[in-house]
Amino acid sequence: MQATITQVLFDLFFLFAAARLLGEISEALRQPAVVGELLAGVLVGPHVLGIVAGPEQELVVLDVIAELGVIILLFTVGLETSLSDLRRVGRAAIVVGTTGVILPFVGGTALMLTLHHTTSESLFMAAALVATSVGVTARVFRDLGSLGTTAAKVVLGAAVVDDVLAITVLALVAGLARGDLSEVTLAVTLLEEVAFLAFVVFAGPRLVRRLSDFAHLPIVPGSPFALAVLLTLGLAALSDVIGLASIIGAFLAGLIFELRREEIANQVEPVYEFLVPFFFAVTGTRLDPTVFANPRILGLATVVTVVAIVTKVAAGFLGTRRLGTRTAVTVGIAMVPRAEVGLIVAAFGLSLGVITAELYGVVLAMTVATTVITPPVLAAILNRGAAEAVGE
Amino acid sequence: MQATITQVLFDLFFLFAAARLLGEISEALRQPAVVGELLAGVLVGPHVLGIVAGPEQELVVLDVIAELGVIILLFTVGLETSLSDLRRVGRAAIVVGTTGVILPFVGGTALMLTLHHTTSESLFMAAALVATSVGVTARVFRDLGSLGTTAAKVVLGAAVVDDVLAITVLALVAGLARGDLSEVTLAVTLLEEVAFLAFVVFAGPRLVRRLSDFAHLPIVPGSPFALAVLLTLGLAALSDVIGLASIIGAFLAGLIFELRREEIANQVEPVYEFLVPFFFAVTGTRLDPTVFANPRILGLATVVTVVAIVTKVAAGFLGTRRLGTRTAVTVGIAMVPRAEVGLIVAAFGLSLGVITAELYGVVLAMTVATTVITPPVLAAILNRGAAEAVGE
Repeated sequence: MQATITQVLFDLFFLFAAARLLGEISEALRQPAVVGELLAGVLVGPHVLGIVAGPEQELVVLDVIAELGVIILLFTVGLETSLSDLRRVGRAAIVVGTTGVILPFVGGTALMLTLHHTTSESLFMAAALVATSVGVTARVFRDLGSLGTTAAKVVLGAAVVDDVLAITVLALVAGLARGDLSEVTLAVTLLEEVAFLAFVVFAGPRLVRRLSDFAHLPIVPGSPFALAVLLTLGLAALSDVIGLASIIGAFLAGLIFELRREEIANQVEPVYEFLVPFFFAVTGTRLDPTVFANPRILGLATVVTVVAIVTKVAAGFLGTRRLGTRTAVTVGIAMVPRAEVGLIVAAFGLSLGVITAELYGVVLAMTVATTVITPPVLAAILNRGAAEAVGE
Repeated sequence: MQATITQVLFDLFFLFAAARLLGEISEALRQPAVVGELLAGVLVGPHVLGIVAGPEQELVVLDVIAELGVIILLFTVGLETSLSDLRRVGRAAIVVGTTGVILPFVGGTALMLTLHHTTSESLFMAAALVATSVGVTARVFRDLGSLGTTAAKVVLGAAVVDDVLAITVLALVAGLARGDLSEVTLAVTLLEEVAFLAFVVFAGPRLVRRLSDFAHLPIVPGSPFALAVLLTLGLAALSDVIGLASIIGAFLAGLIFELRREEIANQVEPVYEFLVPFFFAVTGTRLDPTVFANPRILGLATVVTVVAIVTKVAAGFLGTRRLGTRTAVTVGIAMVPRAEVGLIVAAFGLSLGVITAELYGVVLAMTVATTVITPPVLAAILNRGAAEAVGE
């Protein structure tokens, strides 16, 4: 126990130091800090310098701290997003979210079947391509001050839709693979998620206002902040249990928290600065550059990644082409990163014996590639179009 | 992995909710919030409601988060303490720290020998009574706005001295138990620690000022805060490796960090509010009230706890009686809580086969009792003497 704590303290020190250093270098090179933070993780991780390299118990601790980081990130993003703004782009977000699930799923299945994989293998791999992980994108938007743009709002809305559908797709393919697919289960899954979202978005603000009556009592200074922490942890945990990503719950918490928003935003800033870099650095530690030494895996990973990118960009573009080419391209690129959900699907397929360890490696490579490629590309587009796009 | 993360999110939600709720109730009853936070942990812990109850992997994660909390606490306390003030009470602090190690060690050994325990058993039990854990006390001082008092300064200085000597005592008894005691090892241990402290306290401020030159470059807003995080994590980890408690390193980090102290203090406040309650709540989860159902353990635990309390109060009193009775009593009470180091000594004795599981239980009960008893007693003294004691 004590040994783990000591080791984790050192890990956190090196991860934070490397993340800040490479983050500043990134910014000096006109890249978002997140690029440097991801590379910092690769650098101190097990495959390059080997400073942060396990054992398992230590990695679990780091994963949880990283998770707290991305939860704080999405809470902050939610806080900086207005619910009514989000409703205004609702239609575009639903189209982007839905097409963004259908295209990668169809494209992924077609690709794998063409390469002579079995049907269940193909469906599982396709399911792993479905869910966008909005953390990286949200961070880039935030770093570049673009959270107020229409593109950012569409992306955030679409990420919620996307996550609901992705979980339904997972239930679908898991049912198919186990041979116990039932329309009832699928419908229940979908209904549960939609009911959760509807409850949070409609009843949430009222509930927060009610709770605020207590928080206004001058018992303890800073109570609204404690309330925000509670709401965030609670909704993140609930989302997670219901099958949605915990970051969706954190985002919703920020979205509906209307009590002293500005004060809370200021208070959450140092927590953000302390914890968020760990998410990206820890994500970076997972990249094993040697995976790409195996030409078979490298080849398959490349095609899968290309399909993963093209289908999401196409979906984003199709859903928002009426909003102008630049916004449409921005939304498309922003939807590209995949992470946790894709890995969970692949790990689940692995545990069911539906996909091989090699295919799991391909999914891992795809999530890392999409995560690392997106920030610089998105930053380039946002920087070039800064004048047009900022629509506050 | 994912299951652990989900579970930890729920644990954190319930720990934070209970800690804040009971913390506010405590304050309404004119007790420090920390009393409620400790009880919150007992309540949601494995032995009462059983909400936070393992498995092991989950508990390790919670321990690390709790550790980050107490590190932030001691960093904040260091930030609010001035190095020159501490130097001014140096003599008193050294006397309190030294007597506070000798008296419990001698008293503990005498007690155990009288109760017919073996010499190594007695020495190990006595060693477990030595180290004060300054977290609880520092929190009470801070909650009641008494960090500026002479008593608080003596206690903080004495805690550092105490920790250095406690580790030396551990090396001593471990050497005796294993039969490989060498004066050289002891001297090296002591020298290492003193050198570390001297280096940090004398070279530290200059080093921080040098680093600040970089931080003043306007590359990234908030750089001084990042620097503070790095220094804290780094010194905490180093202290831990050298054998001192990580919180001593965190305290030193706060003490020597002289760059924009006020701004940093404001920024660390929300991080404090987010993480510190977890330390006390998680500590509370360790209390198993059923231990006290065994009359043999209960009896021994009571005598040991009484000796643990009386010897520390006496040491505090002896070292500071010239500063007035109230200050002397405050210092004495403030030095009472024991925690990690005592448990580490006991666990070490258990692993060497020197002490029994039953005696380990006694040490555990003693740490919990001293931790839970101190806050209300200390608060009562501080509140009664508020007018006299606040000496800013």
